[in-house]
Amino acid sequence: MSENTNQEPVKMPGKYELIADLAKFFPVENASTVVGPGDDATVTDSDGNQTVTSSKVFIENVHFDLTYFPLRHLGYKLATVAFADVLAMNATPSQLLVNIAVSDRFDLRMVNEILSGVGACCETVHADLAGLDLTTSPRELVVSITAIGECAPAQLCTRKGASENELICVSGDFAAAYTGLLLLEREKKVFEKNPGAQPDFTGKDYLLRRQLKPEPRIDIIEKLRQEEILPTAMANVSEGLATAVMQICKASQKGCVLFEEKLPMTELTFVTLKDLDIVHTVAALNGGDDYELMFTIKQSDFEKIKKVDNVSIIGYIKEESAGYHLITGDNVQVPLQAQGFQHS
Amino acid sequence: MSENTNQEPVKMPGKYELIADLAKFFPVENASTVVGPGDDATVTDSDGNQTVTSSKVFIENVHFDLTYFPLRHLGYKLATVAFADVLAMNATPSQLLVNIAVSDRFDLRMVNEILSGVGACCETVHADLAGLDLTTSPRELVVSITAIGECAPAQLCTRKGASENELICVSGDFAAAYTGLLLLEREKKVFEKNPGAQPDFTGKDYLLRRQLKPEPRIDIIEKLRQEEILPTAMANVSEGLATAVMQICKASQKGCVLFEEKLPMTELTFVTLKDLDIVHTVAALNGGDDYELMFTIKQSDFEKIKKVDNVSIIGYIKEESAGYHLITGDNVQVPLQAQGFQHS
Repeated sequence: MSENTNQEPVKMPGKYELIADLAKFFPVENASTVVGPGDDATVTDSDGNQTVTSSKVFIENVHFDLTYFPLRHLGYKLATVAFADVLAMNATPSQLLVNIAVSDRFDLRMVNEILSGVGACCETVHADLAGLDLTTSPRELVVSITAIGECAPAQLCTRKGASENELICVSGDFAAAYTGLLLLEREKKVFEKNPGAQPDFTGKDYLLRRQLKPEPRIDIIEKLRQEEILPTAMANVSEGLATAVMQICKASQKGCVLFEEKLPMTELTFVTLKDLDIVHTVAALNGGDDYELMFTIKQSDFEKIKKVDNVSIIGYIKEESAGYHLITGDNVQVPLQAQGFQHS
Repeated sequence: MSENTNQEPVKMPGKYELIADLAKFFPVENASTVVGPGDDATVTDSDGNQTVTSSKVFIENVHFDLTYFPLRHLGYKLATVAFADVLAMNATPSQLLVNIAVSDRFDLRMVNEILSGVGACCETVHADLAGLDLTTSPRELVVSITAIGECAPAQLCTRKGASENELICVSGDFAAAYTGLLLLEREKKVFEKNPGAQPDFTGKDYLLRRQLKPEPRIDIIEKLRQEEILPTAMANVSEGLATAVMQICKASQKGCVLFEEKLPMTELTFVTLKDLDIVHTVAALNGGDDYELMFTIKQSDFEKIKKVDNVSIIGYIKEESAGYHLITGDNVQVPLQAQGFQHS
């Protein structure tokens, strides 16, 4: 989950370089470790069967705000976020482990609400809630989730593997969750000044749903398999399109170009962002909280991908020295910027 | 980790019954889920190979106190705690995933210290640090750890499987970590009143080490294999002997009797507890933070277990209706009490 739900969001510039630097001190030594730190999830091998594991920790007032998060939706969303990393390896979710740490503000009914949301998301992806622990927290609600999935080695997709001239595809549409967050934050401020005020979200259901209850894109994984498309690289889009494309490019040692006009966005998102005076392309590139899939495919898969609904081709892979660029609607080439990466 | 490091510890009476009640709402459905919620760790199967996964979340001022925890020791301890659950399934640790959430009190050097401790513990058990993420926390340091291990199905030990008349064994000695904690808390209070005071821990090194840097008992797992002893049931002793024995008995639908005089304790622990005016048996049964192994073996393994150093036989399994009892040094039978279980 991107760290943007706090009133004063704590950004971590250079976070990915930092993690890569730290990971260097811990070389992977066991033959069973197929993918270590630095991808969407860890991959372990046991006699040719691969297990994909992603572990996340979510803290109140950093990763979510209980002022507007129904607890059941929160549970559903946190499970979606963890499964998104497993799906982004092209694995099939199988189990989920959850630890909930609550302060004395919480009672059993509230814990139950969170768990019922977690369980509903497990049902969506046909995974078992296979681990559960409760503990105490001094203040903030803390939830840690470990999602597990299975993958045949030949099906595994890491961020590494994109080649020059391959097509960059994404599922779904972008900036809706971010726009939903902006509306929720706006109404929260209105409510804080005037506790009698009723929030006005008329016609904005889609934006709120995308923020409060995003869906795990197991449908896309299944459709790609049906069409026999094996992506060459894949990443979970959790912090905006720019971060995801740079994760794929850096891991694959490639460059890229994206086309502004190809970035998928609903009319509702576009209009609402305009009302909020926010540049819609910036929101699509850096908004976050989408949990869609970004993947690269061979040009020869072009006819096949057209049969998969809810997938857009937004650009293509270039040689590493070309860097990362966006071609704007005015046909101007601008460098991509991504939160979480240090720009030198 | 037991929740006893806070000045006003937050107890969770009936925690295990509560977790069992909640888990009932989420029936295990996938064939690959071998062991779901309610044991030391989750077990998943992939074509006959079993993967053991344990996920824990640790929060400052609930699970640890940075006043006296060197960050490197903290990292080592948290990894030990997570691996202890994997070892208690009789599995071999293979990977560890860590998420660290820090507030702005923390700098990179401090994150590095924690990680170096985590990495040192990984080396002890020959596991890879295979997942790493950093995020922000509003106040308390939060660390979530997922430990992964491998196990041949025939070697797997759950808490379920103990039979009548089998011997109850434990590794190591007890109450040392708890006594170390009491000393650290006492000196903390002295220091708070008089910041010039120097802590006096002369001769107490062992107690402090057991609290601040407990070791994962992979040596015991290896020795049991060498001697070809396959425990019938096993549990991680994290919250005292009483909780562990009741976990095994409840899962196995059995009763038990423990002998007070057989509970292993060092002379140093015994004497220090006496100075602190604490009943040593209560500390051994409920102290917590030991991360030793409790397991049951067939009587026919009695000669073999004598060859394994650092293991004590402390009692035996009875029929379920016998309940859970301790035979005191005066030969009086008293009911066992365990933190975390609701006594009706």
